[in-house]
Amino acid sequence: MNEQLKQLVTEYKQLIDTKLPFHIENLKTPDTLKQAMIYSLNAGGKRIRPVLLLATLDGYNKPVEDGLDLACAIEMIHTYSLIHDDLPAMDDDDTRRGQPTNHKVFGEAMAILAGDALLTYSFELITKMNCAPSEPSKALTLIRELAHASGPEGMVGGQVADMEGENRMLSVEELAAIHHHKTGDLLAYSILAGAILADASAEDLENLRKFAIELGLLFQIKDDILDVEGEAEKIGKPVGSDDGNNKSTYPSLLGLDGAKKMLDVHTIKAKEYLSNVTMNKEKLLALTDYVISRDH
Amino acid sequence: MNEQLKQLVTEYKQLIDTKLPFHIENLKTPDTLKQAMIYSLNAGGKRIRPVLLLATLDGYNKPVEDGLDLACAIEMIHTYSLIHDDLPAMDDDDTRRGQPTNHKVFGEAMAILAGDALLTYSFELITKMNCAPSEPSKALTLIRELAHASGPEGMVGGQVADMEGENRMLSVEELAAIHHHKTGDLLAYSILAGAILADASAEDLENLRKFAIELGLLFQIKDDILDVEGEAEKIGKPVGSDDGNNKSTYPSLLGLDGAKKMLDVHTIKAKEYLSNVTMNKEKLLALTDYVISRDH
Repeated sequence: MNEQLKQLVTEYKQLIDTKLPFHIENLKTPDTLKQAMIYSLNAGGKRIRPVLLLATLDGYNKPVEDGLDLACAIEMIHTYSLIHDDLPAMDDDDTRRGQPTNHKVFGEAMAILAGDALLTYSFELITKMNCAPSEPSKALTLIRELAHASGPEGMVGGQVADMEGENRMLSVEELAAIHHHKTGDLLAYSILAGAILADASAEDLENLRKFAIELGLLFQIKDDILDVEGEAEKIGKPVGSDDGNNKSTYPSLLGLDGAKKMLDVHTIKAKEYLSNVTMNKEKLLALTDYVISRDH
Repeated sequence: MNEQLKQLVTEYKQLIDTKLPFHIENLKTPDTLKQAMIYSLNAGGKRIRPVLLLATLDGYNKPVEDGLDLACAIEMIHTYSLIHDDLPAMDDDDTRRGQPTNHKVFGEAMAILAGDALLTYSFELITKMNCAPSEPSKALTLIRELAHASGPEGMVGGQVADMEGENRMLSVEELAAIHHHKTGDLLAYSILAGAILADASAEDLENLRKFAIELGLLFQIKDDILDVEGEAEKIGKPVGSDDGNNKSTYPSLLGLDGAKKMLDVHTIKAKEYLSNVTMNKEKLLALTDYVISRDH
């Protein structure tokens, strides 16, 4: 990551890291639930979705403050999905980013409920954003798109498809479709949400949606490559951990070189879509380059 | 239940029973997820929340069709909460209403995800209701109140408080506060939502909110009384099943007679609040009488 981008990401990340627990701290709800929600919100992470939203807003010359609450809502949904994914009945993970998972600290029942609470509260948060769009219809669009991206036709559907695809060999198309929904839809929403807040044209929204789906794909291909190449301490989980359950990955289907080639092809596509968008694209381009060149 | 009310409830229930699976059937999502969502939506239940919403709308002389989608959204949230409540990590129930619980049929992972999907989709549904309110700001209010009633400051918070109150003796006030959030908030929302759709005055909304909270309380006190008095086959779970884990109930705190007296006191309060509302109150009154006199 170049110095300028690093500074930007750090700045955005700090804004989100500060704002996220603030939303939960003052809720009138049992302390344990609050602690469980905040524990996972504070458990670090790259905040890639909020960063994408704020960078998009900025690309349209809008103040990033206008997107902070919405970015928090997205991160709450991402966080709930991680809490539920880690449960014994799902991936049964004891640690995430080097820390005990939510259910290891608070117990399974509380982890389920903390996830439910984060998911539900994210929608409440959008209805009362500080910098709410002047037209309520825009807030409704933001809610509809977020629910779609994270519900049965988006993230949850992708999670189910992923579960059902375990232990059998998938085609590259099937694998891409799974990731499209499991991780791509919420990433894409983050960019779209920034553009919607900034009153982008329908054409821009369409190109940004296509760009964002490619970016999500790049993110996953790179993750799979890192999982083969990476060093355990850098990515915080055992290298090759996806191998254990015969999970299909881009390197397992295409070989390491094939996966790297696919990364190149989709990088070109992503940048093509982005080139059609009428905004200052510098930051989204730099983020794209970071996604494909990162080492963890 | 008198014949007239029985006919009304049957009619409303049929409208909801038909509409609920329809919303899910056409989703572009893996079949298993769809089946798991529909399984629990179709698992019967009294549809008390939808009935309350439609009866309220009707009391304001509005067509009940205007509230069907919103009633479905509420029932989806109620259903998700039952699926998650039944999980092994929570109440660990094998059956509900005489049928195997969701995780017994589809497995724990799918049950968690089916709950997540129902919760998320309910918000999407509200943003695209067929009979959407003409003003988007009203839809936003409906979403904000629903998220509040079912999130950390509502149902999920009540669930946590309930869990934490197990195995210790609660005060009657603590017990009432738990039920207020665990079941009362979503019941109250159902009535409020009907009134909001019908453009009720702020004063009506306030009195209906108070009435609805009393109604939720009545519902729970009566449930507890039935649990002591009822016959196993009528309520579909072992009689006195709440006793097993030393759970506080109104009869356990007040004795059976004390609980019945409390039922009387709050019935009077509920009807007082309702009497101040400027609508045709006949159906809500009949429903209140049903709640306190039912035998299952």
